[in-house]
Amino acid sequence: MPNSRNHCSLEFLGRYGLGVLVTAVWLGRTGGCPCQLHPEPPPASLPQTSKKLVNSVAGCADDALAGLVACNPSLQLLQGHRVALRSDLDSLKGRVALLSGGGSGHEPAHAGFIGKGMLTGVIAGAVFTSPAVGSILAAIRAVAQAGTVGTLLIVKNYTGDRLNFGLAREQARAEGIPVEMVVVGDDSAFTVLKKAGRRGLCGTVLIHKVAGALAEAGVGLEEITDRVSVVAKAMGTLGVSLSSCSVPGSKPTFELAADEVELGLGKLVTPWMAPADEIVALMLDHMTSSSNASHVPVQPGSSVVLMVNNLGGLSFLELGIIADAAVRSLEGRGVKIARALVGTFMSALEMPGISLTLLLVDEPLLKLIDAETTASAWPNMAKVWVTGRKRSRAAPTEPLAAPDSTAAAGRASKQTVLVLERVCTTLLGLEEHLNALDRAAGDGDCGSTHSRAARAIQGWLKEGPPPASPAQLLSKLSFLLLEKMGGSSGALYGLFLTAAAQPLKAKTDLPAWSAAMDAGLAAMQKYGKAAPGDRTMLDSLWAAGQELQAWRSPGANLLQILTKAVKSAEAAAEATKNMEAGAGRASYISSARLDQPDPGAVAAAAILRAILEVLQSQGV
Amino acid sequence: MPNSRNHCSLEFLGRYGLGVLVTAVWLGRTGGCPCQLHPEPPPASLPQTSKKLVNSVAGCADDALAGLVACNPSLQLLQGHRVALRSDLDSLKGRVALLSGGGSGHEPAHAGFIGKGMLTGVIAGAVFTSPAVGSILAAIRAVAQAGTVGTLLIVKNYTGDRLNFGLAREQARAEGIPVEMVVVGDDSAFTVLKKAGRRGLCGTVLIHKVAGALAEAGVGLEEITDRVSVVAKAMGTLGVSLSSCSVPGSKPTFELAADEVELGLGKLVTPWMAPADEIVALMLDHMTSSSNASHVPVQPGSSVVLMVNNLGGLSFLELGIIADAAVRSLEGRGVKIARALVGTFMSALEMPGISLTLLLVDEPLLKLIDAETTASAWPNMAKVWVTGRKRSRAAPTEPLAAPDSTAAAGRASKQTVLVLERVCTTLLGLEEHLNALDRAAGDGDCGSTHSRAARAIQGWLKEGPPPASPAQLLSKLSFLLLEKMGGSSGALYGLFLTAAAQPLKAKTDLPAWSAAMDAGLAAMQKYGKAAPGDRTMLDSLWAAGQELQAWRSPGANLLQILTKAVKSAEAAAEATKNMEAGAGRASYISSARLDQPDPGAVAAAAILRAILEVLQSQGV
Repeated sequence: MPNSRNHCSLEFLGRYGLGVLVTAVWLGRTGGCPCQLHPEPPPASLPQTSKKLVNSVAGCADDALAGLVACNPSLQLLQGHRVALRSDLDSLKGRVALLSGGGSGHEPAHAGFIGKGMLTGVIAGAVFTSPAVGSILAAIRAVAQAGTVGTLLIVKNYTGDRLNFGLAREQARAEGIPVEMVVVGDDSAFTVLKKAGRRGLCGTVLIHKVAGALAEAGVGLEEITDRVSVVAKAMGTLGVSLSSCSVPGSKPTFELAADEVELGLGKLVTPWMAPADEIVALMLDHMTSSSNASHVPVQPGSSVVLMVNNLGGLSFLELGIIADAAVRSLEGRGVKIARALVGTFMSALEMPGISLTLLLVDEPLLKLIDAETTASAWPNMAKVWVTGRKRSRAAPTEPLAAPDSTAAAGRASKQTVLVLERVCTTLLGLEEHLNALDRAAGDGDCGSTHSRAARAIQGWLKEGPPPASPAQLLSKLSFLLLEKMGGSSGALYGLFLTAAAQPLKAKTDLPAWSAAMDAGLAAMQKYGKAAPGDRTMLDSLWAAGQELQAWRSPGANLLQILTKAVKSAEAAAEATKNMEAGAGRASYISSARLDQPDPGAVAAAAILRAILEVLQSQGV
Repeated sequence: MPNSRNHCSLEFLGRYGLGVLVTAVWLGRTGGCPCQLHPEPPPASLPQTSKKLVNSVAGCADDALAGLVACNPSLQLLQGHRVALRSDLDSLKGRVALLSGGGSGHEPAHAGFIGKGMLTGVIAGAVFTSPAVGSILAAIRAVAQAGTVGTLLIVKNYTGDRLNFGLAREQARAEGIPVEMVVVGDDSAFTVLKKAGRRGLCGTVLIHKVAGALAEAGVGLEEITDRVSVVAKAMGTLGVSLSSCSVPGSKPTFELAADEVELGLGKLVTPWMAPADEIVALMLDHMTSSSNASHVPVQPGSSVVLMVNNLGGLSFLELGIIADAAVRSLEGRGVKIARALVGTFMSALEMPGISLTLLLVDEPLLKLIDAETTASAWPNMAKVWVTGRKRSRAAPTEPLAAPDSTAAAGRASKQTVLVLERVCTTLLGLEEHLNALDRAAGDGDCGSTHSRAARAIQGWLKEGPPPASPAQLLSKLSFLLLEKMGGSSGALYGLFLTAAAQPLKAKTDLPAWSAAMDAGLAAMQKYGKAAPGDRTMLDSLWAAGQELQAWRSPGANLLQILTKAVKSAEAAAEATKNMEAGAGRASYISSARLDQPDPGAVAAAAILRAILEVLQSQGV
């Protein structure tokens, strides 16, 4: 079912892929580009030139390399050339130099891989254009004049790069400099090989790493060349992208329909939310299938290094999702993952997509991958196998309830249940009123939020009697509101109740209840960043708390003081109608539009009155 | 001139900015997002949901964290929670634990910063949503149960994060676990401070680093809390973006016009190619201006750490350009840059933009920034000052011309000049014919390319006589064609001539000329990846080269053999009309459409005939 939605198929790639989007054009003008450059001018229907943060189209490649060098004190530019070299070049006497490069637009490749243990330097072309022969030759001469004993050129397989690096190599050899060249072609897209060969893609970075480790170990030019040539044949890369990138000053290089992704060199019809697991499985199938002439011979039991490379514009969230899918899919095939590198290694400007690279490894090769390097774009990677380790740890044990000296045996008093029930019915009765108040200043759901809390408490009361200990009661209510009331109100009441519970662990007399109120208010102010006068629920609660301080005096009267507190809370709620919002969503609304009291403050005052009324009716 | 093209101004920010795009909504539903979330549903005119590589909208945050943990053997998930912790947790007995987190969508923050010397663990929420209190509490309990002596919560200043981390802290303290909390607010966008305070942005990563170095050094909870609180006040961050990002399953979070960028919390009218230098200068002006209540007090002579952070979807090419602009602008202000971190540290999904962070540093603080860490997303950074070092090295010296035993004194023979002139007039005469042949199979410029070469040689001949030594002559022609002919043809002829020059350094007899032809052909095949029969210029040259082997026999006749070679080349060129293209651009054209000879092969044969005719007329 090719081309049907909800079905991924590589048939399209096989049937039309190579003719649709072609990169490696033998006589073409585009030299060093691992992204899918269209050889013809883009059709007129494409959108206008993309927005870019650049100083000039012509200066892009120079400015970008200058920025990388400016920020990395281990690098220096070679005057007069778009070349970056290790700044400690003169410490490399007697060693082999490693140079790479290609068109710009693939950052951090290749300059990000310069450093001890990786590249000696790079030569950068204009965006997606092969570098100048003169600059390649200058780089070879510079490292030779610094005392290195030979140079290996690591070149991605694109016609322009092959020719320009090859020409510089021939010229340098004519000058008596020993220069070898490895052409990397790791593209696994080609079902049938063309003479131009496989394109050089992200796997090239692994060649930088292996060659760098060998050079750092003092291995000679011929041996490094031979060994990395073998490694280069043991890997494969395949990319997928959601849309194109665009060269600064140009239109996007190709076009994809809304329901298409590009896979390898072909288009693939896929649902709008391209299913990551399916696409990754399809990619790995293709990369490892022996019917694909460019496959990597990965089989059950094989050990691999996996690279999950951001082509530039994909979110790192999606990159993680792809990495997860790739690890699961590979391990599901019985493949053992030695190391997994996840990040941006070789991009195609801002292309939203990824490439997967698989390299077959044994222990000696893994040692080279693990060897130390100072290259800035090489990841800080644990030298531990990915496959076979424990990826999760058991959740912590719940702490035993702290001993609560106030905990009476048995159930809570009938009075507590009555208070909670009255609070709930009060809030449910206010739902429409609170929503109406909230529509003027917020999103109109304040009543609904409080009703949700009320219904949660009612449901909880049906499950059984609440705990007798006030501290435990407030803690339970805190968890309940946090979970069921939701939003910032739930968190704020949760904070209030959690903090208020603490002073009630030791005592439950009136001074303790006043201390509980104060602790709750303090927590609410601390984490919510509101103060009295900011037109929030805090206004009512704070006014009440001030009155309840009187509970701390010897012989204080519970109901008398609570009555004053409720009245004060109601007055404070009413007073919010004249306040400018200092916090909360209402703070972004013009004060001229606020002529009603704050619904959160009204609700808090109503809760306090409900408590008072039950206590009065019970004749406490 | 606010809002006029070609003029950047922060006036718009001051006048409307805070009302336009608002993030830190005190009672809002969106908790932990350093990108510019719009608090209202996006207008209906926004484009459809963006294409994403995900398995499900609901599973995004879980899958992404699982992928990060799967690929990083130093991390483990906490069962039942969206929490990642160091896998060597049990080695941290007696030390302070550092936990951070927030909404997902900011990867690699924060899980990428878990490791020795940085965070102990992170708690991730859904995309752009604060994490669950229960998971924060579980993480605190897990590190406490592993034997750590206290926990510091590093929280970005968003209401949801403050409340949820605060609540977990209160609950953990109620269980007897020592927990402190630092709220980071490094946003420098706010000209006037709101009560909600500055948002926590990319600078938070530096707090992770400093706290991590202190914890690793065995410093206690109170002291770490105090010291990072001071550091958090000495920094500022400002972002700019070219367009929005979109939460999986949702439309873009805000809209920018074609000529707008978002700067801080406001919109800025700017040319389509947003001038990087101007935008960076504007950002640094705003970040350091004392009239901005949220500024960093950076002055001439100050020492700073600079972070250039990719918000997700900007190309690394542009990131380098911005880094270059930032370094130049800061140093132009007399600011000394101690370290510069360039990369993706705290993203907002695929938002195409950057943020700049400045942290004032002294030597003790720099030591903490430099301390070792195994965190995967912390860059491999040289511990050397950025400002004050030499950023370029002198170009290499040109090698002295190799001694050339064949170099006759004085000028080239008249015959050499005649040969070159005839080659040029021949190619110029063929321009239209070659272009016409090329239109069928290539881009129709083969004749133009060869004419360009011819005119370059004519111009060079006018400058003075060519060198007498054949080796030097071919080398000079190689450089000339490479530079002036351009494209792959220039590179291929350049390669041919460079390689052909080598055997002529020692001798210039007929066997040496045959060896030169063979060397040229070998180089062309090696780097161009074409073989005889592939319908390229190589076909004619190779046919001629086969005949010229006869020059190696004693007493061989120059003209007789050359005549055979030219005829053979012409026959080979003609034969290409029946060949399927095996290389070059024509290889992507159906062979049914190719019924004319290859223009490159025709040109090569014509060059050989021009040489023959001059030598015949000169009676060699």
